[in-house]
Amino acid sequence: MNITELSKAELAGLCADLEKQYEGLKAHDHKLDMSRGKPSAEQLDLSNDLLTDPFPYISANGTDSRNYGVLEGLPEIREFFGDILGIDPNNIIIGGNASLSLEYDALMRMWVFGSKGATPWSKLPKVKFICPVPGYDRHFTMLEELGIEMINVDLYDDGPDMDKVEELVKYDPSVKGIFCVPLYSNPTGACYSDEKTERLAAMKTAAEDFKIFWDNAYGIHHLYDEGEKLANILDLCEKHGNADRVFYFFSTSKITFAGAGVSLVAASADMIKEIRGHMFCQTIGYDKTNQLRTLNFFKTHGGIEEHMKRHAAILRPKFELVLNRFESEFAGSGILSWSKPKGGYFISVNTLKGCAKETVALCKGVGLTLTGAGAAFPYKKDPDDSNIRIAPSYPDMKELADALDVFCICCRLAAVRKLLEN
Amino acid sequence: MNITELSKAELAGLCADLEKQYEGLKAHDHKLDMSRGKPSAEQLDLSNDLLTDPFPYISANGTDSRNYGVLEGLPEIREFFGDILGIDPNNIIIGGNASLSLEYDALMRMWVFGSKGATPWSKLPKVKFICPVPGYDRHFTMLEELGIEMINVDLYDDGPDMDKVEELVKYDPSVKGIFCVPLYSNPTGACYSDEKTERLAAMKTAAEDFKIFWDNAYGIHHLYDEGEKLANILDLCEKHGNADRVFYFFSTSKITFAGAGVSLVAASADMIKEIRGHMFCQTIGYDKTNQLRTLNFFKTHGGIEEHMKRHAAILRPKFELVLNRFESEFAGSGILSWSKPKGGYFISVNTLKGCAKETVALCKGVGLTLTGAGAAFPYKKDPDDSNIRIAPSYPDMKELADALDVFCICCRLAAVRKLLEN
Repeated sequence: MNITELSKAELAGLCADLEKQYEGLKAHDHKLDMSRGKPSAEQLDLSNDLLTDPFPYISANGTDSRNYGVLEGLPEIREFFGDILGIDPNNIIIGGNASLSLEYDALMRMWVFGSKGATPWSKLPKVKFICPVPGYDRHFTMLEELGIEMINVDLYDDGPDMDKVEELVKYDPSVKGIFCVPLYSNPTGACYSDEKTERLAAMKTAAEDFKIFWDNAYGIHHLYDEGEKLANILDLCEKHGNADRVFYFFSTSKITFAGAGVSLVAASADMIKEIRGHMFCQTIGYDKTNQLRTLNFFKTHGGIEEHMKRHAAILRPKFELVLNRFESEFAGSGILSWSKPKGGYFISVNTLKGCAKETVALCKGVGLTLTGAGAAFPYKKDPDDSNIRIAPSYPDMKELADALDVFCICCRLAAVRKLLEN
Repeated sequence: MNITELSKAELAGLCADLEKQYEGLKAHDHKLDMSRGKPSAEQLDLSNDLLTDPFPYISANGTDSRNYGVLEGLPEIREFFGDILGIDPNNIIIGGNASLSLEYDALMRMWVFGSKGATPWSKLPKVKFICPVPGYDRHFTMLEELGIEMINVDLYDDGPDMDKVEELVKYDPSVKGIFCVPLYSNPTGACYSDEKTERLAAMKTAAEDFKIFWDNAYGIHHLYDEGEKLANILDLCEKHGNADRVFYFFSTSKITFAGAGVSLVAASADMIKEIRGHMFCQTIGYDKTNQLRTLNFFKTHGGIEEHMKRHAAILRPKFELVLNRFESEFAGSGILSWSKPKGGYFISVNTLKGCAKETVALCKGVGLTLTGAGAAFPYKKDPDDSNIRIAPSYPDMKELADALDVFCICCRLAAVRKLLEN
């Protein structure tokens, strides 16, 4: 039934019915949360051996991981990640517990010091960043803190609207960068195609110091055995003579423990040298015991892949529960569209225009917390007030089913009310 | 024998003798290192249970330390440190593996954002910092990276030359801060007296946003049971109406594992609010598993004190070996003075003027690496070329004795040669 095609009288009847159902939800006194992309306790339990398993705290080359030193991280963990991501270990520096801090540091260095003699961004009258939307709120928060102007560009299933991106970067030297989550993007699950990745690497930019912040947060977070592949942007940038264009980030935050993982930044040889120089002023080194602890837990590339399959076995039914419910409730309804991710942590939905805030508020009113409407847009402003990020990972299956009951009624009610207004 | 009072002929004889001894050192083919303030493996072994002991990874209030969240750190670890340092846990934020990064972040925030509406330091024509010397090279590195002008002020056994400090801050609003290691200062072991600490808290500063970077790196690192006491600078700043003046840093880097500890920043309520606001843009949170792991290891304030006594039992003989050797070799010689620390990681020596670089080079020539001469001064420039930092913690007793053999001969040789020049 396409709800958008109903008559006013039919809508009024449906609305009365939905309002009754909504009142009925109050009796459940729900305390449900589908707001944050947190792993469930069951997923975290997969890594509990990390907490107690003895591990060789002396590295292969004799370095005592318990002591100071080795700013760039131990060779074996750089090799391990290099193997997983197809990156030369010499182009990798290991960071602390999460890659977000490495992203912040990289941005801050461009802001304060600049790169290769170019004017530090803080000294420019205006700095702009391209933000594929919907996107990751924490990226927008950092840009907003620095007063960097954010320009929305639509994110499609295979990456951003590249025609738009190429046009924006071509003549305006104040457009300095773009934040990308290239695989299973937060929140739509979009995966950048080889073609779009290469266009990002190859495009002409007016800014000589244009930077791609390549946050590969979900690089191995497949829900199905046949995972999506990602082109190697470092290689592509080098191929097109733009080797210094990309800062590549990855971490084990959603592989082992969220917020107690091991992170990395990868870049060209020149950028690694610059990063290392600034990092020397900032720290004597990151936690090397956690580097060896993590390596000992996985042992091999195959070990981490097997581990990710165990995550997938927990996450997949949750994603399928949501997607199947959306299919049965909203297919052909005209009031909701949704992404169908093959990995990552989120599903992105679009309500009728002007219904996202109302849907989130209605859910809140009966005990279901969702991510705030607009959160996936710069300045928290969704121009259509239509996008909602669904995070199915944290609740258990029963809670998730309850949350979906709530969401479906609230989403319908908001839509029907909106249609009645018109 | 006061070498400075010898005749030229006596000096020439001594020099010939020392040169023969120096040649003799070459046969040993030493590979000795007294350069870095690293704990020894024996000290690190004291904390090995940290690596494997099971610990309750769910915090007292039910937070799962393995998951995201709790930007400011878990309540129990903030209480634990609050108890040790005499600071309200509400005024403490827990950081990552080392406090140096927290210091860098605090400095960078003043640089980029400023505090309480004051002009960010990066927008000012000139920013100056007071640097008590000799001091910690890593503090100077950070200031130098930002182009902050460093002003040397003498550090005495009870703290900096406060008359000089008060004069510098009184009329010049570009003097924005001071870096202090208030207890067992790196490298002299100086301990700030209550009086000097209070003067720092009370002094009138032309800059409204003057900041004391209070790096209490050795706050409980006593060599003897009767440890030096440190006045509470946070309380004193508040008492004198300058509550926002101090950023207080501490970590367990040299308590558990160097570079894999737990760090903190403490400050006034207003400053904590500002720090938290910026930190939110930078990270979702630091490693909470390491917070609970560390707390579980010590259990109580008494537990960490006992642990520090075990460190002292290892370090004390090393410090005493060095100090006794200096006493027997150089007392009354007129060519070397040295500090007599009661805690911390370093001993600071002063050679005859103009002899530090030569002494370090002579040592290097026969296989003993020392911290570079001048390292304890801004821009690595010791105006007297006299100061050398001795780090006795890392070598074992045999290596330390060998290193002292080398050092004593090289120090004498450099001095005698210098005296012959005059």
